[in-house]
Amino acid sequence: MPTFEVFQSTSDGRITQRETTKPDLTGDQVLVKISASGVCGTDLHYRTSGIVLGHEGVGTVIAIGPNCSQLQLGVRVGWGYIHDSCGHCQSCLAGREVYCPDVKMYGQDDHDQGSFAHQAVWREAFLFELPEALQDAEAAPLMCAGATIWNAIETYNIRGGQCVGVSGVGGLGHLAIQFAAKLGCEVVAFSSTESKREEALRLGAKHFFVTKGSAKLSVPRELDHLLVTTGALPDWNSMLPLLSAEATIYPLTVSFSNISIPAFPFIAKGLTLQGSVVSPRGAHKRMLKFAAFHGIKPVIETFPMTAEGIEEALHKLDEGKIRYRGVLVAE
Amino acid sequence: MPTFEVFQSTSDGRITQRETTKPDLTGDQVLVKISASGVCGTDLHYRTSGIVLGHEGVGTVIAIGPNCSQLQLGVRVGWGYIHDSCGHCQSCLAGREVYCPDVKMYGQDDHDQGSFAHQAVWREAFLFELPEALQDAEAAPLMCAGATIWNAIETYNIRGGQCVGVSGVGGLGHLAIQFAAKLGCEVVAFSSTESKREEALRLGAKHFFVTKGSAKLSVPRELDHLLVTTGALPDWNSMLPLLSAEATIYPLTVSFSNISIPAFPFIAKGLTLQGSVVSPRGAHKRMLKFAAFHGIKPVIETFPMTAEGIEEALHKLDEGKIRYRGVLVAE
Repeated sequence: MPTFEVFQSTSDGRITQRETTKPDLTGDQVLVKISASGVCGTDLHYRTSGIVLGHEGVGTVIAIGPNCSQLQLGVRVGWGYIHDSCGHCQSCLAGREVYCPDVKMYGQDDHDQGSFAHQAVWREAFLFELPEALQDAEAAPLMCAGATIWNAIETYNIRGGQCVGVSGVGGLGHLAIQFAAKLGCEVVAFSSTESKREEALRLGAKHFFVTKGSAKLSVPRELDHLLVTTGALPDWNSMLPLLSAEATIYPLTVSFSNISIPAFPFIAKGLTLQGSVVSPRGAHKRMLKFAAFHGIKPVIETFPMTAEGIEEALHKLDEGKIRYRGVLVAE
Repeated sequence: MPTFEVFQSTSDGRITQRETTKPDLTGDQVLVKISASGVCGTDLHYRTSGIVLGHEGVGTVIAIGPNCSQLQLGVRVGWGYIHDSCGHCQSCLAGREVYCPDVKMYGQDDHDQGSFAHQAVWREAFLFELPEALQDAEAAPLMCAGATIWNAIETYNIRGGQCVGVSGVGGLGHLAIQFAAKLGCEVVAFSSTESKREEALRLGAKHFFVTKGSAKLSVPRELDHLLVTTGALPDWNSMLPLLSAEATIYPLTVSFSNISIPAFPFIAKGLTLQGSVVSPRGAHKRMLKFAAFHGIKPVIETFPMTAEGIEEALHKLDEGKIRYRGVLVAE
């Protein structure tokens, strides 16, 4: 029987390589030869889960199931955070399948779907054909990080002419700066230290502020939106005064703690706190086109797609040392 | 010199009556003979502030300044939470003067503007002519409580066909039930005890649930909106599962503590936490027309407009015993 290799997390946080059987493709299943996979903070959350990690997969279609109608052999595709929505609930019918009660999100897979693998069987309906302008390794981080930034932008109408704060210049933040700048926004980047100033400005930020040790920040223009891309929330006492009336705050990283915000300024300023996930598929496709058109690319650091390479990438991510998104590349 | 009487809070939380001089009216100032004033939870916050309390004033125009162009003698008017916006900032130009940096909000008055008084000098630009169908004492609570509910409804597009939760059946909540029901929403009321069930259903709620002692609540339909009208926030563990994906939560009472909400369900469900204040003037006028057209009236408990009457009303409000909005009525 044909097999392929996957990389699985263990209960003690290591990565092991094992073979899995390639099933006969049914329905709209597609077999993808994986060329690259992004490494995301959420992978750290599932490090001891025993699943095959990875949800920013990119590769080439090498076999298609009997009901496929969109993809052909040889097409380059990407695969992301959600899959297998039901297609008939209110959310699905509204094109908002990211909120389908039956949708499978990363970490809820019951088989070897993760993109830390040499091959994977995925459904055509949840694959995204890649524009020619996007290289495999650079496209991978767009599948979750890019789609997370884009959902906030598209769903909540962040648009040119507005002033957009990006708190944190990392895997998400360095993409947020690029997307917002290319939309025609005035982008204000906030980082804990000086070290990323040059990169943030190069990527399109108009202003850069160091938050650590700054009791009082002062921006040239009030922020209409604040994309919070750090795990920890900003110091609201210094950040809330920077927001315009009716501004929106987006906490974009998954966290299992509480979001806490001072009630009085929040209400008196008419602020919005907006929960936001990855893009639904329609928006995801528009995100890829936008990135290709504007030359938006993650700044990546590559590691080999091996057990050792994955462990090294996760370790470096956990230490906050990746500039700015780790990508595993098939050898 | 002509004078009139006002009721002022003292630093030890009592109410004293004193005379104030009626100034010569300038600009668009109007002299109003006050017939009724609502008593709001915010008055309790300012109980030791030394100002003239009250911001739900209703009365009759008895003198007008030289630049008045809209009001005539004898017209019945209401006066509310905000006044004196600048007219030229971005918020004012957008018709969002509630967020004008220069707007005076209740508690920031530098003279005897409060509606716990026999007369008051107010600006025509911040007065609302009352529809004939609204009686004075019943119109008073609409000036802040009604305008607070209506702003959430109009600004954030709460509309017929949606399911609206109202947490707390009190001064704000019993109006929220009526407004939402008349919009054609399916209204679900939540109260800590059984005592207000009958009233809530009579006012238009379709369902009523007791929250106290209920670890797990179950609603017939997921909530699209949740208006939180209680000072304390709901128990999120029992409330968040009742919300639909992409639902909005409105904390409507002014608080000086933090709003805290579990990050994971908030983000995964794409929820919105929306800060919301009173209505801007355009919306306030639409609110009055809507209330008049649909016969929406607060359930009121009246007290005499005297120092003793005010103290009694504040005391009863503080104890949570008013059903459902206290109104001071001139004798």
